[in-house]
Amino acid sequence: MKYAVLGTGMVGHTLATKLVSLGHEVRMGARSADNEKAVAWADANGAKARQGRFAEVAAWADRVIFAVNGGNIVAVAEAVGNDAVAGKTVIDVTNPLDMSGGLPPTLIPELSNTTSAGEALQAQLPDAKVVKTLNTMNHLIMVDPARVPGEHDVFLCGEDDAAKQDVVAMLAEFGWTDPVDLGPLAAARGTEGLMPFWLRMWGAVGNADFNYRIVRA
Amino acid sequence: MKYAVLGTGMVGHTLATKLVSLGHEVRMGARSADNEKAVAWADANGAKARQGRFAEVAAWADRVIFAVNGGNIVAVAEAVGNDAVAGKTVIDVTNPLDMSGGLPPTLIPELSNTTSAGEALQAQLPDAKVVKTLNTMNHLIMVDPARVPGEHDVFLCGEDDAAKQDVVAMLAEFGWTDPVDLGPLAAARGTEGLMPFWLRMWGAVGNADFNYRIVRA
Repeated sequence: MKYAVLGTGMVGHTLATKLVSLGHEVRMGARSADNEKAVAWADANGAKARQGRFAEVAAWADRVIFAVNGGNIVAVAEAVGNDAVAGKTVIDVTNPLDMSGGLPPTLIPELSNTTSAGEALQAQLPDAKVVKTLNTMNHLIMVDPARVPGEHDVFLCGEDDAAKQDVVAMLAEFGWTDPVDLGPLAAARGTEGLMPFWLRMWGAVGNADFNYRIVRA
Repeated sequence: MKYAVLGTGMVGHTLATKLVSLGHEVRMGARSADNEKAVAWADANGAKARQGRFAEVAAWADRVIFAVNGGNIVAVAEAVGNDAVAGKTVIDVTNPLDMSGGLPPTLIPELSNTTSAGEALQAQLPDAKVVKTLNTMNHLIMVDPARVPGEHDVFLCGEDDAAKQDVVAMLAEFGWTDPVDLGPLAAARGTEGLMPFWLRMWGAVGNADFNYRIVRA
């Protein structure tokens, strides 16, 4: 499978590296083709790892992962363009955090509560099949759920059932056996809204190696 | 212990009834002294159960529980007044839900993200010792954690350590053995922010008998 991973931060780096280790071809996307972090990542990860501009890697890929800062999601979607992702499964792992007021961050009002980063992404790329997932945990747990012992949960939501099945398959490759489908993409308002809680829980736990389990009767 | 439970809805009813069953004296507070639901509750719950106006029951009580609609929290706090709760442990179990746009509700912008219902309550009642807790689950689980099998979590936050210890003791009477202290009252932004997620999870589970467990490495 050919994956484009848009974003050169910790989350993008972790996802891209895991996908290469699983045997996929991966291109890391950035605003410029010579982005230093993307070039360094490609150089370190062998022949199946390359890098390029957002629109180029998205057009090349079978699946496109948005792993940029949530506040940049619309701008990056504009740079990608609807044509590059038409009909493709687009995986959104972002959170719309506003860091401008210091720590802990708040949610960006224009991308939360009555909407979400996931929905804003879908609106900008109407022919993409956007699925929101993996945005509720530390990046290392995303690709290695066994870092946290026992049962704990990953969530997904989106409008297209086939795209969700693509994501379920990718999550299974990462080690997630039973993802919780929260329904339509608007459920991203819920999962993105977990982040302010997560940040306080991080303080209470003392490290990021924790995750949510929904315990049922 | 003398508890005032402000609010006559399901949450107030459940908490007040449980507290009476534990042997406490409880007065259910409402805007008027002859509120039908409060009178009916008092009539049904024996000599230790009475009802009255918000300010009267709060002034009488040792501990005051806010179980009103989150959108009314400032108005009810105004009706109570700072003097009635000065120096007392005030327990806030509300969520600032905006039902005006249909279901699922969103969060009231003026009471979320950069603030919280808990913080608004504290600002209105500066001499109260506000502790936020129990607002992350169905009301039946609040007073009966064994409804959901195995380990799952209740959270609390607030500025006053002695008040938190009062709340930990009350939670222990309800059956909660290991509450998670999230620190200052501003952490209520996190726990109140769980509600949009909870509402989607309710749909996915199919009933309200579930709760969060924070699984740690």
